[in-house]
Amino acid sequence: MDVITSRQNSSIRAAAKLNHSAAFRRQEGKFLLEGARLCRDAVQSGVQVLTAYFTSDAMQKYRPYADEISAKAQQAFEIEPHVAQLLSDTKHSQGVFCVCQMPPKDPPASLAHGHYLALENIQDPANLGAVLRTGEALGIDGVILAGDCCDLYSPKILRASMGAVFRLPVYFAPAVLALFSRWHEQGFITWAAVPAQHAIPVTKADFSGPSILLVGNEGAGLSDDVIQQASCCVTIPMRGRAESLNAAASASILMWEMLRGLA
Amino acid sequence: MDVITSRQNSSIRAAAKLNHSAAFRRQEGKFLLEGARLCRDAVQSGVQVLTAYFTSDAMQKYRPYADEISAKAQQAFEIEPHVAQLLSDTKHSQGVFCVCQMPPKDPPASLAHGHYLALENIQDPANLGAVLRTGEALGIDGVILAGDCCDLYSPKILRASMGAVFRLPVYFAPAVLALFSRWHEQGFITWAAVPAQHAIPVTKADFSGPSILLVGNEGAGLSDDVIQQASCCVTIPMRGRAESLNAAASASILMWEMLRGLA
Repeated sequence: MDVITSRQNSSIRAAAKLNHSAAFRRQEGKFLLEGARLCRDAVQSGVQVLTAYFTSDAMQKYRPYADEISAKAQQAFEIEPHVAQLLSDTKHSQGVFCVCQMPPKDPPASLAHGHYLALENIQDPANLGAVLRTGEALGIDGVILAGDCCDLYSPKILRASMGAVFRLPVYFAPAVLALFSRWHEQGFITWAAVPAQHAIPVTKADFSGPSILLVGNEGAGLSDDVIQQASCCVTIPMRGRAESLNAAASASILMWEMLRGLA
Repeated sequence: MDVITSRQNSSIRAAAKLNHSAAFRRQEGKFLLEGARLCRDAVQSGVQVLTAYFTSDAMQKYRPYADEISAKAQQAFEIEPHVAQLLSDTKHSQGVFCVCQMPPKDPPASLAHGHYLALENIQDPANLGAVLRTGEALGIDGVILAGDCCDLYSPKILRASMGAVFRLPVYFAPAVLALFSRWHEQGFITWAAVPAQHAIPVTKADFSGPSILLVGNEGAGLSDDVIQQASCCVTIPMRGRAESLNAAASASILMWEMLRGLA
């Protein structure tokens, strides 16, 4: 395996830029992944690994992971620790990195019948990562990122989602409203989550058919257009201080309710 | 208002130490709070403010907050920006700080009938903060920190809980097992949350009576002793990848189920 000793190496410079720039990730259609377990999860989930980098320590310490990753990567390099530092987003790096191809994530024109979560304009990476992780545990069939959400491939989301990013179908729908009529024709019910009291309490909602649950931005909630186009509005009845429920907790409870009868 | 211009000021040095040392917080029975909204929430919730510090910018920008805080504080000082930096735990400090007395949090020998969450050995401050915040929203009657949980008054928890720390009854129970027999005599059912399939699915559990829900550590779950002493075991039935549900998400869904019929 060739060894990269310089931080000026062009492949390293490009990889580091993928870590810091969402625009560069979009332009290249690639992202950088860090950590032995996450890189192995990506490989096992069929994500295409273009280049893998390992420190020599990492190749010893995480040998089974490193072997599995190298076997699938188009290229693999050893990197010196000071080079690894440049790629790392964490305090204590494991010294394992992959540059991966973004999987195709076209807006789902025809969605297989099932139960989906659509998030509109979610801005907090930790929230998005946590919601993906919980959604995977609860058995959601897919997640739709509507409008202008934070970048799915930021290091923070990749970490917080614990690999759910790779295992869950995640679709991009910048113009989500255009998809509503097709979804409704296909038999989906779209549920707009709102704090309003006039909405259907989630405990009384019938999620037995194909369902898409729409959850909005942390501060502003769903946009008015989405609320108006949705089949119905749903709300979480609360005994306590409603303003204290954040978007991630709301999405978790709503997904749980949607899937609760199906487990 | 007197102005503190030096980082060597003994009151400032002690306040900064409260921010960084859980041991010093315990020894002094005090903690440091940062942020206009959080400090105002503490005052409104009856937390005793010993000393308040404001930068001159903050006194202008957050005047209604600063006035309310100063009125209740035993002492108040203006501090210069470089002094504020020493106290701050955030990148963009608002320049508002309070040294507060820890409220008494004795283990609840006799607990008012209601619905409680008990967390055992929770180590992640962000998880604990998020759970307190969600618990307040859902209307939990109180939270019991059992065993060796992370410090309730760390800056991260105070921020993540959005003031729920002050508004919710939170009790410390280092030796939680000693309390079980009293709780059971009082008519409480204690529910141990476990991943085991033989446990009662949370959707079938009867939480109509006085209930204490027990949730364990992020990695290890509840201790065996707690599981054995609890009235019964409860579990979250899942369609998806169960290992992906973390302690905060589990606690949120379990609290939701416990309180769902009562809203």
